[in-house]
Amino acid sequence: MSEMMNEILDQPQALERTLRAERDHAEAFRDFARRRGFRLILLVARGTSDNAALFGRYLLEITTGIPVSLCAPSIHTVYHAHLNLREALVVGISQSGEGTDINRVLHATRRQGAYTVGITNERHSGMARAVHEVFLARAGRQRSVAATKTYTTQLLLLYLLASALGRQITPAGMSEIPGRAREALELSSEIDTLVERYRYMRQCIVVARGLNYANALELGLKLMETCYVVAERFSSADFLHGPIALVERDFPVLVFMPPGKTFNELRKLVERLKALRAETLVITSPDTRLPAATRTIHVPSAVPELYSPIPYIIPGQLFAAALAKVRGLDADKPRSLQIVTRTI
Amino acid sequence: MSEMMNEILDQPQALERTLRAERDHAEAFRDFARRRGFRLILLVARGTSDNAALFGRYLLEITTGIPVSLCAPSIHTVYHAHLNLREALVVGISQSGEGTDINRVLHATRRQGAYTVGITNERHSGMARAVHEVFLARAGRQRSVAATKTYTTQLLLLYLLASALGRQITPAGMSEIPGRAREALELSSEIDTLVERYRYMRQCIVVARGLNYANALELGLKLMETCYVVAERFSSADFLHGPIALVERDFPVLVFMPPGKTFNELRKLVERLKALRAETLVITSPDTRLPAATRTIHVPSAVPELYSPIPYIIPGQLFAAALAKVRGLDADKPRSLQIVTRTI
Repeated sequence: MSEMMNEILDQPQALERTLRAERDHAEAFRDFARRRGFRLILLVARGTSDNAALFGRYLLEITTGIPVSLCAPSIHTVYHAHLNLREALVVGISQSGEGTDINRVLHATRRQGAYTVGITNERHSGMARAVHEVFLARAGRQRSVAATKTYTTQLLLLYLLASALGRQITPAGMSEIPGRAREALELSSEIDTLVERYRYMRQCIVVARGLNYANALELGLKLMETCYVVAERFSSADFLHGPIALVERDFPVLVFMPPGKTFNELRKLVERLKALRAETLVITSPDTRLPAATRTIHVPSAVPELYSPIPYIIPGQLFAAALAKVRGLDADKPRSLQIVTRTI
Repeated sequence: MSEMMNEILDQPQALERTLRAERDHAEAFRDFARRRGFRLILLVARGTSDNAALFGRYLLEITTGIPVSLCAPSIHTVYHAHLNLREALVVGISQSGEGTDINRVLHATRRQGAYTVGITNERHSGMARAVHEVFLARAGRQRSVAATKTYTTQLLLLYLLASALGRQITPAGMSEIPGRAREALELSSEIDTLVERYRYMRQCIVVARGLNYANALELGLKLMETCYVVAERFSSADFLHGPIALVERDFPVLVFMPPGKTFNELRKLVERLKALRAETLVITSPDTRLPAATRTIHVPSAVPELYSPIPYIIPGQLFAAALAKVRGLDADKPRSLQIVTRTI
């Protein structure tokens, strides 16, 4: 079995460990944050961690009301801009904690007056030394180049941060996440069969909206890294503003579609894609029937939309790992890549 | 000639008209902004206008020091979050001024205490009615579905906004933009010849960094809309964090590479791509020699990096329009699209 598959299967335990270990920390951070009164949150990351940051952007704005900005690192590391960040919370996200550019941004923004937090899987990393405070993922050492368990534990730590900064995310809601991840893993053998259909897929589009938009970016990235599929990623609204022109007969479009506030819009999109005779593969809830979809993956448990991103990415991860396998590719060693990428 | 090509050629005049008409307005806005003391800028847009917003994000943070956030419209229109925006400047960008979601965000953020500005090409639009203040592009009516002259006039208005909110962007610097756009148009016949080589290109990657990153997104979007090329778009740093695994022999990568702070990093990328035997097409300055590049487009005049995005996108626009033509596609009528896209 690939390391990637091992790490996918390890997620329920990694999530449980992380939640148990950092729950009280988040509770303490709530009091500190209240006194400090943050007016802006800046999220800083690259690659898969940047997809986690995109999730954090939606989650934190929706549940805390604090405006969030996704950092463009070059503004700090290349252009050396000085921003007014005195009332800002800056959150760096990196599994290894050794992303040179991310750590430089953390140092620079700290000097500019921000309070800095690191979300990392490595206790003794450059990131851990750079920040005021670490929220530590307990995912265990990442051995696969393609990140999976570190992505979902980063999402979990962002839930914990949201629970400290607002009221909508609750301990009860978070406590169900590891179990839902475990249920999603039951899809493994079904997906092993399903991927045969996509053996020769060279390009595709992955679409979602809102809280699951980050999952579209993450699944697309996994397909690029491990299967060499040219995977475009769009929010459904952006997709309709231009790139839908790409879609012709048989063009594959993968859609994250949990019940909730984005569901109806995405259902209309799937119907429009059917009219264009495109192929759609939809990840949705157990009781959703979608006659317009070409193929459907039903996540086993009905999940409130707010808590859907972790269980919904798991079939995506399983899909990428299984597709790499049927193509005879080594998902653990994508060409041209290492685990720690150094850019500035 | 296509409407798209007409509109590309009309850009020097459109830029001149816009600069002349809005220069004093920007000067007046400077005093207002100083009194108001904005602590955050939120940019709100879709499609090509969202690419302009991405440029604005870099320009405004680098030259004003005010943190910038690119709005995720669904946070307001789908999730109905309430953000604390009392010290925020919200800037909506839309050529038609009729993007339903963008205008809803402007109404919502205005209610939440923000000062709202609209950058639009239409004086009597929903956007113009929604905002406190309009910065009006004088691009003339857009007839092509693929936006070109409205993109560059939006960039120009963002320069004017940056000149009002900071010190780095100067009237002298801006006054040279229309002339540089005119010079860039001289590349037209050279590009007509060059595109023959890409007649059968089905997919590609477009890369840039920093101030020109928005141009990578914009060229990729033009290639998707008008040529049906599956064009991935990355900042060079993000590209190295995973998607470079896609690149195999002959894979085409288009690179925006003005001299300046991002140049050396991009040169190393082009050399790495040569080692992977990929095809690179580089847009760069008149005196840059790049032996590692497969093909090079030299923008006629040497431009400081800060003012490069408008002259550098023009060869990209010419490339997309010419490629659509050699493919026998009607650039003015991409399948599945209208000029005004209504999403929420």
